[in-house]
Amino acid sequence: MSVFTPVSESQLAAWLKGYSVGAPAALEPIAAGIENTNYFVTTGQGRYVLTLFERLPAAELPFYLGLMAHLARHGIPCPAPIADLQDRLLSSLNGKPAALVTRLEGGSIERPDAAQCAELGALLARMHLAARSYGGYLENPRGPRWWRLAAADVRPFLDGERRALLEAELAFQAAHRHAELPRAAVHADLFRDNALFSGGRLSGVIDFYFAGVDCLLYDVAVCVNDWCLVDPERDRRLDERRALALLAAYAAVRPFESAERAAWPAMLRAAALRFWLSRLHDKHLPRPGELVKVHDPEHFREILALRAAAGAGCPWPD
Amino acid sequence: MSVFTPVSESQLAAWLKGYSVGAPAALEPIAAGIENTNYFVTTGQGRYVLTLFERLPAAELPFYLGLMAHLARHGIPCPAPIADLQDRLLSSLNGKPAALVTRLEGGSIERPDAAQCAELGALLARMHLAARSYGGYLENPRGPRWWRLAAADVRPFLDGERRALLEAELAFQAAHRHAELPRAAVHADLFRDNALFSGGRLSGVIDFYFAGVDCLLYDVAVCVNDWCLVDPERDRRLDERRALALLAAYAAVRPFESAERAAWPAMLRAAALRFWLSRLHDKHLPRPGELVKVHDPEHFREILALRAAAGAGCPWPD
Repeated sequence: MSVFTPVSESQLAAWLKGYSVGAPAALEPIAAGIENTNYFVTTGQGRYVLTLFERLPAAELPFYLGLMAHLARHGIPCPAPIADLQDRLLSSLNGKPAALVTRLEGGSIERPDAAQCAELGALLARMHLAARSYGGYLENPRGPRWWRLAAADVRPFLDGERRALLEAELAFQAAHRHAELPRAAVHADLFRDNALFSGGRLSGVIDFYFAGVDCLLYDVAVCVNDWCLVDPERDRRLDERRALALLAAYAAVRPFESAERAAWPAMLRAAALRFWLSRLHDKHLPRPGELVKVHDPEHFREILALRAAAGAGCPWPD
Repeated sequence: MSVFTPVSESQLAAWLKGYSVGAPAALEPIAAGIENTNYFVTTGQGRYVLTLFERLPAAELPFYLGLMAHLARHGIPCPAPIADLQDRLLSSLNGKPAALVTRLEGGSIERPDAAQCAELGALLARMHLAARSYGGYLENPRGPRWWRLAAADVRPFLDGERRALLEAELAFQAAHRHAELPRAAVHADLFRDNALFSGGRLSGVIDFYFAGVDCLLYDVAVCVNDWCLVDPERDRRLDERRALALLAAYAAVRPFESAERAAWPAMLRAAALRFWLSRLHDKHLPRPGELVKVHDPEHFREILALRAAAGAGCPWPD
């Protein structure tokens, strides 16, 4: 259940008078999502998602909404924030920062095939090209600085083997910085459940509230670690066929630089480390009042260990 | 035939590399349109309209494209210009200024009923509310200043009766200026063929290339003079039921001011005058090389005469 702040039909109708989308015809709470209150909103003009921001720092919201508006303006199929009559993408409802965004068609898929991985790779590259002209700046809130803070928090809860893996990986990543790689605002959380498919084709990308400026290749690594596993439940090695399909489709739109090829094995490990740490944090240090399903941190511990063991032997479309 | 500047598939493919919408899958010329070259373009990501601007002054194009982008950002269903990788809404193709905009679903209808007129009225009001925060400025290029220039051009071609009507109307309009009415960027050409319906519902508004800053009420009058005739071919009086449906639906979104009520009869005449003049101009002074179907000016002469005769007796939702 993710409605932290209820919105009544009359409150919605009054609030929508500040927009040019027409009067509401339907209001339906959305159960998914852990950071915000979300509703589906339908008017005579269209279908929207209403989001009330519950936990995200207010100072970061313009970056996320501005990024979505920028990408939508470039034709990227993502939720487009609707500006209100004062031309603001962010307003306020029931005491919370609130935004109205377009609702995309489609649903997520659990087992993408190689063609669907290729579609994701191509769209990710188009997003990256479009994002390079975005003027907003927010350092990835789950980047290297956060890893160290999170590691300090969760270290007491780890056994010796896991603590050793964490220390070794932090040291490895500290020795492999990537200042030379192309950077831009990236999604940074483009798991399968944040991509929508309709009729078997990729129809959109949602949930930009972990976005930040980071290496483009990091965003690719986050995707590959989720989309291209041999079996997400039982065998977390990379499926070479799907990984190559994703990477080759990406490279056809935005060719990789040689420095990115060199950084790829370390980047897969960085992307695994980030989610191992956040899942450990959610498990051992839940925020007060949080009713969220905790994902098993072991999934990403295993991915991290496998990527570290594979080293340079990971798939790459040469 | 409105393809003045042909575009080949390979030219399109090269040009689209400057955008983030994917590679072209189809390219199809559009026969309608008299000012620009238009093609339907389909990519793996979406459906678009490519426009090469043939005649519009280059200095005016940013106003039109900026207005469409502004309205789309406010949720108005209109063609949304796609920004290129340099973040520009306007680029260049085959030596012409060119833009890529989203393609809307639906088709126009010839005989709207009262419910469809009401939908148009409500959407028009939402467009007007959204347009009030648009920062671009272009005086309506077919406003009072242009009327006088066009009248001087066409006067020699008119018989005595028509010349008298024109002089009388110019004098009437000069005595009825509307500096006190609310103004914003308005469509100014929202005839039935510029509105799209899908499944009987209004799905969008197209062709903003006559837009300009003018009285909001002028835009309403242009619509009523086209959407609400008893019979567009045989009886050009206003159909009271459809006119009231359009006006009441508009007023439910943006209530009219008392000055607008007072100005309404004169505004219906102004909107008729503008199109009588442009049709006279197109007929008697066609631009060189133009292959355009000329609309009969008599249609709007009759509307103008009928509105002048009706005076204050025109429908209004009091």
